Amino acid sequence: MHIVIIGAAGMVGRKLAAKLTADGQLDGKPITEMTLVDVVTPEAPASFTGKVNAREADLSAPGEAETLVAARPDVIFHLAAIVSGEAELDFEKGYRINLDGTRYLFDAIRLAHGVDGYRPRVVFTSSIAVVGAPLPYPIPDEYHTTPLTSYGTQKAICELLLSDYSRRGFFDGIAIRLPTICIRPGKPNKAASGFFSNILREPLVGREAILPVSDDVRHWHTSPRSAVGFLIHGATIDLETVGPRRALSMPGLSATVGEQIEALRRVAGDKAVALIRREPDEMIINMVAGWAPGFEAKRAKALGFKAETSFDEIIRAHIDDELGGTL
Amino acid sequence: MHIVIIGAAGMVGRKLAAKLTADGQLDGKPITEMTLVDVVTPEAPASFTGKVNAREADLSAPGEAETLVAARPDVIFHLAAIVSGEAELDFEKGYRINLDGTRYLFDAIRLAHGVDGYRPRVVFTSSIAVVGAPLPYPIPDEYHTTPLTSYGTQKAICELLLSDYSRRGFFDGIAIRLPTICIRPGKPNKAASGFFSNILREPLVGREAILPVSDDVRHWHTSPRSAVGFLIHGATIDLETVGPRRALSMPGLSATVGEQIEALRRVAGDKAVALIRREPDEMIINMVAGWAPGFEAKRAKALGFKAETSFDEIIRAHIDDELGGTL
Repeated sequence: MHIVIIGAAGMVGRKLAAKLTADGQLDGKPITEMTLVDVVTPEAPASFTGKVNAREADLSAPGEAETLVAARPDVIFHLAAIVSGEAELDFEKGYRINLDGTRYLFDAIRLAHGVDGYRPRVVFTSSIAVVGAPLPYPIPDEYHTTPLTSYGTQKAICELLLSDYSRRGFFDGIAIRLPTICIRPGKPNKAASGFFSNILREPLVGREAILPVSDDVRHWHTSPRSAVGFLIHGATIDLETVGPRRALSMPGLSATVGEQIEALRRVAGDKAVALIRREPDEMIINMVAGWAPGFEAKRAKALGFKAETSFDEIIRAHIDDELGGTL
Repeated sequence: MHIVIIGAAGMVGRKLAAKLTADGQLDGKPITEMTLVDVVTPEAPASFTGKVNAREADLSAPGEAETLVAARPDVIFHLAAIVSGEAELDFEKGYRINLDGTRYLFDAIRLAHGVDGYRPRVVFTSSIAVVGAPLPYPIPDEYHTTPLTSYGTQKAICELLLSDYSRRGFFDGIAIRLPTICIRPGKPNKAASGFFSNILREPLVGREAILPVSDDVRHWHTSPRSAVGFLIHGATIDLETVGPRRALSMPGLSATVGEQIEALRRVAGDKAVALIRREPDEMIINMVAGWAPGFEAKRAKALGFKAETSFDEIIRAHIDDELGGTL
């Protein structure tokens, strides 16, 4: 089985490649080849024994999608995107990478399908940014997509394309609407959503973290481990059970910042909680007010997608996966 | 005021041009110039006294959108589209005309906005085909768009683009989700939805019509007169009252075929009803089963969009507008 990961140098892409390497198979079939692409050259997973093609590529460049499709990979994970903030600052770049790049990929597959009936599984990462305030809580699966960012618009459009191309039989697609990933490993970054991870990850290793919003802010989370699990389940699920509506809001954990902090207290004690410094930031407060508080995700749960059910679990997953299992 | 109608040779386009001519103004401002474009040269409205530019043009051809925008029209009605059946048969043509053509227009406006702050009103006709079965009845305004045709997918994508480009301030857009138009004037056509009009229009003038579905089929209708009214209201409404969700399901009349027939009986008698011949058609029966039975359209009603409230009214509008007021 030949697997392509577009966006393989990102956090989720790296974890997905590592998990596929550890599993050695997908849907019971041995993985013999992995093609890893990103705008920076991705690292090949150390212990993978099959063939690895790791290279720098921009999906929106002419011919790139055709090159990927020429090898007729069995499964294509398309995780690459310009993030929300950048897509908002650079309108043309956001549409070029997030919309046109995806459409080039879909069309290259469509044309290959016309040549020899090629029909791969395509797993596309969408986002909760496809919805926009005012939002009910919890958000039903049937709620409309009214994004308030260009990034969310691009993701919502790609969901529509994916469903239509799948309905026409060009490929077997599924769009996975990821919750905000928490706890993101690595260093604090400047993403507006970064604090959700920072206030847990930093205190767990004795470092201070800044909390720019109030404790009653509610948001929608899942661990990196669950996110990878969603993608692998999406790559193997029987799509007949999914039907024509191929964009699925994933399960996740709806929690307030206060609930995050109490979970931190239970797992790491008052000393860790004391490292959270409150510094209200009006800009972030206003942005976060429009974000999704949580989804019902009934369909995805019924289809076997699984996520954490408490923030204690999310914190322990981080300790296991990033800190060697102990504090 | 300079008004552009793209798709001006179509039924709605012609009626819109005629209504604007009769009104002589839009939003209290005199209409001094109309640019009418379509893939066949549109007819200039006979009694319009201002400047008319009527020409054959394909919005998906290079430079066409820029030409339209160069004159900096105040209002652009974009009604042009490949219809559902053709977009399903010719995948590439549907995406080229319905998606790319619209995006070229939006981008030409965006670039003009960057040059001199140009910011026209853009009224785009969307469709109830943006939703797809299974559907509740009535369909709430917040219901998600899960089209089951490429045409519906293209319309849903253009709605998303229109909202994002409007949010960014490039133009003031509004997307009008038209119900099925009934009674369509002219000859019976082969569109699968044609019978909704045929079974009224033909018996009203003593001709036979074929009904391919059962009497209990429920669908969502509005008259050509109301459709034109929606577009004009969309061109003049204060968009601050609409907010960022720019795609609006229009009000309409939800009726079963049986209710249509009873209205025909009230207006034109048993003799007219006797001209309806029942010839069940499995293909049409299956297609229609997936169509929208009706919308709540709460937002549009609250925003002042108005439609008929009985099929008797719809039939009388046809008699007034197409048959000189009498049978």
